[in-house]
Amino acid sequence: MIHILTTGGTFDKEYNYISGELLFIDTHLPEMLKRARCGLDVRIEKLMMIDSLDMTNEQREFIAEQCKRTTSHKIIITHGTDTMVDTAKYLAGQELLESKTIVLTGAMIPYSLGASSDGFFNIGAALAFVQVLPAGVYIAMNGRYYNWDNVQKNYNTGFFENVRSKI
Amino acid sequence: MIHILTTGGTFDKEYNYISGELLFIDTHLPEMLKRARCGLDVRIEKLMMIDSLDMTNEQREFIAEQCKRTTSHKIIITHGTDTMVDTAKYLAGQELLESKTIVLTGAMIPYSLGASSDGFFNIGAALAFVQVLPAGVYIAMNGRYYNWDNVQKNYNTGFFENVRSKI
Amino acid sequence: MIHILTTGGTFDKEYNYISGELLFIDTHLPEMLKRARCGLDVRIEKLMMIDSLDMTNEQREFIAEQCKRTTSHKIIITHGTDTMVDTAKYLAGQELLESKTIVLTGAMIPYSLGASSDGFFNIGAALAFVQVLPAGVYIAMNGRYYNWDNVQKNYNTGFFENVRSKI
Amino acid sequence: MIHILTTGGTFDKEYNYISGELLFIDTHLPEMLKRARCGLDVRIEKLMMIDSLDMTNEQREFIAEQCKRTTSHKIIITHGTDTMVDTAKYLAGQELLESKTIVLTGAMIPYSLGASSDGFFNIGAALAFVQVLPAGVYIAMNGRYYNWDNVQKNYNTGFFENVRSKI
Repeated sequence: MIHILTTGGTFDKEYNYISGELLFIDTHLPEMLKRARCGLDVRIEKLMMIDSLDMTNEQREFIAEQCKRTTSHKIIITHGTDTMVDTAKYLAGQELLESKTIVLTGAMIPYSLGASSDGFFNIGAALAFVQVLPAGVYIAMNGRYYNWDNVQKNYNTGFFENVRSKI
Repeated sequence: MIHILTTGGTFDKEYNYISGELLFIDTHLPEMLKRARCGLDVRIEKLMMIDSLDMTNEQREFIAEQCKRTTSHKIIITHGTDTMVDTAKYLAGQELLESKTIVLTGAMIPYSLGASSDGFFNIGAALAFVQVLPAGVYIAMNGRYYNWDNVQKNYNTGFFENVRSKI
Repeated sequence: MIHILTTGGTFDKEYNYISGELLFIDTHLPEMLKRARCGLDVRIEKLMMIDSLDMTNEQREFIAEQCKRTTSHKIIITHGTDTMVDTAKYLAGQELLESKTIVLTGAMIPYSLGASSDGFFNIGAALAFVQVLPAGVYIAMNGRYYNWDNVQKNYNTGFFENVRSKI
Repeated sequence: MIHILTTGGTFDKEYNYISGELLFIDTHLPEMLKRARCGLDVRIEKLMMIDSLDMTNEQREFIAEQCKRTTSHKIIITHGTDTMVDTAKYLAGQELLESKTIVLTGAMIPYSLGASSDGFFNIGAALAFVQVLPAGVYIAMNGRYYNWDNVQKNYNTGFFENVRSKI
């Protein structure tokens, strides 16, 4: 079983036509997996619906506890991109998670915005990576996977990249 | 470098408003990778644009030759779902391909049909699998990967499945 | 009250992923009016779901009877574009309809195909025309309205046009 | 000729994936008319790209001048919904515009947000109304048209409505 934990982020934002703002209503994961005709044994659990810039260490601790608690060894966490790297580092430092494959993913454009969003591609890639990568904490964005200790978001381009180049 | 060879299939069909039929105009792969903000080194090559029910063994031989010819060891083939398994078997029987990871993927609903298509998810998964799976020939559909010798399309549901269950 | 009678046509076709064909499942009108935040008093009635090339004169007679039967004087008929002009002519020749504004509309690309379809625009225009035009039978396509006796479909371009130019 | 003047508003907002905000890049009108296969003689002119809450009376005066200056007697103004009624009133009080049909329209959800936006429907309705309504200033929203002196936005529902009910 693959356990998907959702925390919000751009990935799940929606346009509210009264306020004219992008905010959270509910996760789009169930709808996305149905559309994907996903044949995997997946369980979706909504942990929180927040902008990752607002995520506290108490909330990171809560995410870590849920990763420990689940019997699954394959975990996907949907997460805002701004502090995705911080949460990856937080999880990598945890005992009891060494035997699990944890993949964080998100989107640069909300799934609800339709034809321009990268979210549906990213969840496809994350589901593939979590099945095949060895235990560890990874970020899956832009078609690639990154080890938790060699990744940063480039705030000028919006893309993820290695901290140090491969030699 | 990941080499993507396109052969057509439902994946790349488009609606023609003069004839009212779904047919091939051009591949959507470049547009899809741009939308995915894909940061991988990818080369796209259009081999043919056909319905996979019309694919001949001469055309399968041509695909096999292109897989041998490329210097890349990571190959994705976009393909109609109806005979995807046949092409996978054809490629698996080939010398000189033993050292390559070849992933066939496609779509149950054309990418051009928008919000209902599974194609964008599938290409995300295929790109992830081709980076991580060992050498071999695979089909990536419905969020899963299948070894070439243990997969069939269920023509009632449209889904792919194992021929024999895991024990 | 505006009475919308649906008859099928490209407008309401959907992709069936088992057969790989475009066919009819149900009308999209209720979903479209909801999306439009339509504030009009509208009644939707599904008369048939057919390709307009298959429409018989018995079916045209049935449509005419429904136009007579309804108490509404503002009627929209969604219709395939191939024989839309024939149905308009059929209705224009009918007694008891002289006091009604009847607008036929449709789509060159199915609404279900998303971002390329003209259907949502066309239903917006048809709803506007039916409220404001005097009694008569019209076709609303391509942002324009055409009197039933001066319109033809150009089968090369897919566009509607006047039979004789305005002088 | 129908002259479309764009001023911004929710209608033309787009998601910026670096800042995570909805802002203006360019108008979507040309793309929308192409998708509509619009066969009308239309001229699109971009006057400004602003949130209508920020519109000043100097900017309203500028819009009025453009309405006077154009030789066209059929004018559509795309506009944010929050102060659309104010601009309609401003234009209705102007000499030299009495002989023109001016239709203001907009969207509750940005066109760029895809499958949930009402914008494509609204522009279809506005183009229809401007061709058929007599000279005057109108708002076209929610499938209806409203005279400038009997319309208000309901800020709780987001819908437009008459100030006084019809008797």
